[in-house]
Amino acid sequence: MKACTFDGRAVRVDPAYPDPTPAPGEVRVRIGLAGVCQTDLEIVKGYMGFTGVLGHEFVGTALEGRHKGRRVVGEINCACGSCDMCLAGLPTHCRRRTVLGIAGRDGAWAEMLVLPEANLHAVPDAVSDRQAVFAEPLAAAIQIGRQVPLEPLQKIVVLGGGRLGQLVAQAFRAWRLAPTVVGRSPAKLAILQALGIRCVLAGEARPARDADVVVECTGAADGLAMALAFVRPRGTIVLKSTVADTTGLNLAPIVVDEITVVGSRCGPMGDAVAMLARGEVSVEPLITGEFALAVAPQALAAAAQPGAIKVLIRP
Amino acid sequence: MKACTFDGRAVRVDPAYPDPTPAPGEVRVRIGLAGVCQTDLEIVKGYMGFTGVLGHEFVGTALEGRHKGRRVVGEINCACGSCDMCLAGLPTHCRRRTVLGIAGRDGAWAEMLVLPEANLHAVPDAVSDRQAVFAEPLAAAIQIGRQVPLEPLQKIVVLGGGRLGQLVAQAFRAWRLAPTVVGRSPAKLAILQALGIRCVLAGEARPARDADVVVECTGAADGLAMALAFVRPRGTIVLKSTVADTTGLNLAPIVVDEITVVGSRCGPMGDAVAMLARGEVSVEPLITGEFALAVAPQALAAAAQPGAIKVLIRP
Repeated sequence: MKACTFDGRAVRVDPAYPDPTPAPGEVRVRIGLAGVCQTDLEIVKGYMGFTGVLGHEFVGTALEGRHKGRRVVGEINCACGSCDMCLAGLPTHCRRRTVLGIAGRDGAWAEMLVLPEANLHAVPDAVSDRQAVFAEPLAAAIQIGRQVPLEPLQKIVVLGGGRLGQLVAQAFRAWRLAPTVVGRSPAKLAILQALGIRCVLAGEARPARDADVVVECTGAADGLAMALAFVRPRGTIVLKSTVADTTGLNLAPIVVDEITVVGSRCGPMGDAVAMLARGEVSVEPLITGEFALAVAPQALAAAAQPGAIKVLIRP
Repeated sequence: MKACTFDGRAVRVDPAYPDPTPAPGEVRVRIGLAGVCQTDLEIVKGYMGFTGVLGHEFVGTALEGRHKGRRVVGEINCACGSCDMCLAGLPTHCRRRTVLGIAGRDGAWAEMLVLPEANLHAVPDAVSDRQAVFAEPLAAAIQIGRQVPLEPLQKIVVLGGGRLGQLVAQAFRAWRLAPTVVGRSPAKLAILQALGIRCVLAGEARPARDADVVVECTGAADGLAMALAFVRPRGTIVLKSTVADTTGLNLAPIVVDEITVVGSRCGPMGDAVAMLARGEVSVEPLITGEFALAVAPQALAAAAQPGAIKVLIRP
């Protein structure tokens, strides 16, 4: 099959990559549409030391199993089911997990992938492929609400108006919260403003250590330092960016202001599909463009452009 | 009066420093005994940009007010009472606070200090001066239990067997928790082992990302990186060290493992005095030595030695 791979140095399209073979409990999915995420950009810089087929955002059609012939999206973490984390009910933190296109498992920028059948979620007809491909990053946004108590009277700041910040702000809006998004791109903020979400340009923001909750979606190594300028004493910072770079940071403000920093990663795909089905998230304005799988490296380059939001890859 | 001061460059003893004058609501306290803390060592390296009389750990005798003639210890944060933090019930986070010997207020390495009367806590006769001088750092240890749910079945690791780690481990023991202390000094760990607290030398520890709670009391800029090697996915790191240095840190593990990092600073002095009065904390083995105020810079130097735990200063 055709697949876009990373060998630790270069990204290239292989026209004759071996078709994936499902292990017991796994099913093949024919990819309909895939997405490019900030994590993919970090992976090709060396984050996670991953090699193989790239990509973890997708919608496709199950080729076997109980979803056979139906459109599905999939949880990207594949758990062993027997380690301490799995037995504690935390399969996304499985000690021996593989992660689609991120760790030890070929990903979604291909004609086909395999995932455990248990990882798949059916996509209702009301949700188009161009919507469903957002299920994985939207689930990551929804995860914030599972980890941190959020309520309407809080002052909530979302740092970053990019790929993830857009979805976080829209999920919060669906929950009747009133976030303020701080971003660098007027064009990206305009998308959120059109939805009634308050936005401030980063250069015009006056951080005053007064936000109850700051969600860091900058995709930058200095995102935590920025968040510390916005969060109030005893407030909470949700850290979402996974960045290959190390940052130089003085941690004393976290101690002095007794800040809580909560790392947050993957979230509930079923909730994300349901939120898309209810029409609570507007994804069409977030799509920068679609590229054929044959030119997937161009999709990656396009996603790295400052103006890009979500770049899609179609096999 | 005699006082030990820091002018941003040098620590020296001034034999004729002006006596402090109490503002309305403040009382003078004649110092009986003062302590040297890791924060003092950081301050003379430039942390907080403080100048003035050093020191914030003390026991003394109130010279006026409702505690007149009685021994007292004191909360070090002096609040304005009217800012958003004070009105929210967080006076230790007052926006306009001064902090004894740390920020904008002369400290305790002197014959006398002034503090708001409301900051003082009477010391019962059962608690000696050499015990009471530990009230402030013990309160900082107790603060952890106010911020993070702790229970006996948790795997709790305390990183650092020094000044603060000793008190954290003993407070946890008083709460019937079972911490493991990881430290570099066999002599310091021996003090805790004699109390029945499990200890492991840092060089022999095998961090396995399996601790529910890790309390970072290393006093080192890389303490958070160490803590990340011990904490389990979805676990909690309590950050206690305030260090002048910046550290190079890759934050991705916090996100990937969804770690919660909780900064923790000053705690409830009344609870600390009560814990000392109940005899739940053994402080005598922690006292490295006493120095006269006239040679306070020697006390600071002694506290910086690797083998030192608590160094006291007697006016």
